Amino acid sequence: MKEMDHKWLEEQREEIGLALARQGIRLVVPARPGKKGKTSSSQDSRLASLIDHTLLKPTASQDQIVTLCEEALHYQFASVCVNPVHVPTAARVLKGSKVKVCTVIGFPLGANSSLTKVLEARDAVAAGAEEIDMVVNIGSLLESDYARVYSDIKAVRDGVSGQILKVILETGYLSKEQIVRGCILARMAGADFVKTSTGFGPGGATVEDVTLMRTVVGDDCGVKASGGIRDLATAMALIKAGANRLGASSGVAIIEGLRGEADY
Amino acid sequence: MKEMDHKWLEEQREEIGLALARQGIRLVVPARPGKKGKTSSSQDSRLASLIDHTLLKPTASQDQIVTLCEEALHYQFASVCVNPVHVPTAARVLKGSKVKVCTVIGFPLGANSSLTKVLEARDAVAAGAEEIDMVVNIGSLLESDYARVYSDIKAVRDGVSGQILKVILETGYLSKEQIVRGCILARMAGADFVKTSTGFGPGGATVEDVTLMRTVVGDDCGVKASGGIRDLATAMALIKAGANRLGASSGVAIIEGLRGEADY
Repeated sequence: MKEMDHKWLEEQREEIGLALARQGIRLVVPARPGKKGKTSSSQDSRLASLIDHTLLKPTASQDQIVTLCEEALHYQFASVCVNPVHVPTAARVLKGSKVKVCTVIGFPLGANSSLTKVLEARDAVAAGAEEIDMVVNIGSLLESDYARVYSDIKAVRDGVSGQILKVILETGYLSKEQIVRGCILARMAGADFVKTSTGFGPGGATVEDVTLMRTVVGDDCGVKASGGIRDLATAMALIKAGANRLGASSGVAIIEGLRGEADY
Repeated sequence: MKEMDHKWLEEQREEIGLALARQGIRLVVPARPGKKGKTSSSQDSRLASLIDHTLLKPTASQDQIVTLCEEALHYQFASVCVNPVHVPTAARVLKGSKVKVCTVIGFPLGANSSLTKVLEARDAVAAGAEEIDMVVNIGSLLESDYARVYSDIKAVRDGVSGQILKVILETGYLSKEQIVRGCILARMAGADFVKTSTGFGPGGATVEDVTLMRTVVGDDCGVKASGGIRDLATAMALIKAGANRLGASSGVAIIEGLRGEADY
């Protein structure tokens, strides 16, 4: 990759904008201030409020989802992240609390039609989801079909305009350039967060990728690190690299690790 | 598991029927003769016609999908099995041929809402899909929530009544009893095939599981073996065990293996 300087980034943005324009796509999405993922200073002081407490195994039982929600209430995690089939249960248990219901769309392959992603997202919102983590069209991103990647994200963005939208790039499949382009496209389409990984693909969140993603999206968009975050040290390193949300099934262990540290 | 005798199977069917009745679900789906997967003798003679030529990697490019279709045309496979996002491309390349377009629904976790599965299936059919491989609600099957498993399959069955419906059980997560119950529920809900695996979960098709599934569904329903079928010997063993459709990304290698055998 060329040096990650301001000029190169601008060139990338310009190139993608021109590619979209050639496909007849005009960018009309303004920045959406006030809904972005950048944390406030009060949030920064609380690690738990940065964690999406996650259980996405297809074998998960209703009882396990209830337990996940109860843990999230106890530790005051940002959200629980569950498969769509469990959104009604999570919404019921978390009703009236500050803990959000987060779900995953087009998950984990991202190879669904845009229409399906929109309908799934709207169905999830109707069932109580407040945050939507969608998987990008990975094949199209790898083929540099920017119009298709953009339209896919934009369709979901327009379909669920009132909710936080995170775009999962599945960085383990991508080159550094592709990560940059995925971030630019997600921002152009109005995403609130870019997110590293599904946890079902190759690899997970790395300090290097999170640093790169934060550099590209700047301060007015969130960066969610996910995949393989199992202890406090990893969590802290990713936050230091620029993540302001962590997806983890080990949220309890991470917080208990924090409580075991004297100097935090 | 108790001995796999006729009486025990009948007891299983009766127990599940009673469980559904308690949930207010009355079984009204008749057998659907003439659309079932049991092969004719002429089909039996041709291994290629039993293979769903499969490419489900999220990184697949349009070019790779076109190549997959061209191979399917060359070898006269039963179908190509692709992710929903690639159905339009496959339908275009295969138009006018005998090779079907097969796609996957709620794939690979099965943890989507039933509404999403129905909408995704209908969208795929509108785009040209002729066979629908849906993933069962795995969590509900593990919890013995038969009404939920049944309703989920039945909703998709009603949504795409003109197409072949295969129900993926993801046998790697299931006990023998759960495989039996999954087969009974899939048949009750009107599935044309029961199918072993997604290829993204633990394990793949085994001779033991396929034998069991064929015993449960009898002769008027298909059994598709999938996951880890990479050579001729494995393919032939699964067919001998009762499979009349194979899902494989190695279809070409399997057929070339056949051509290399003098005594077949």
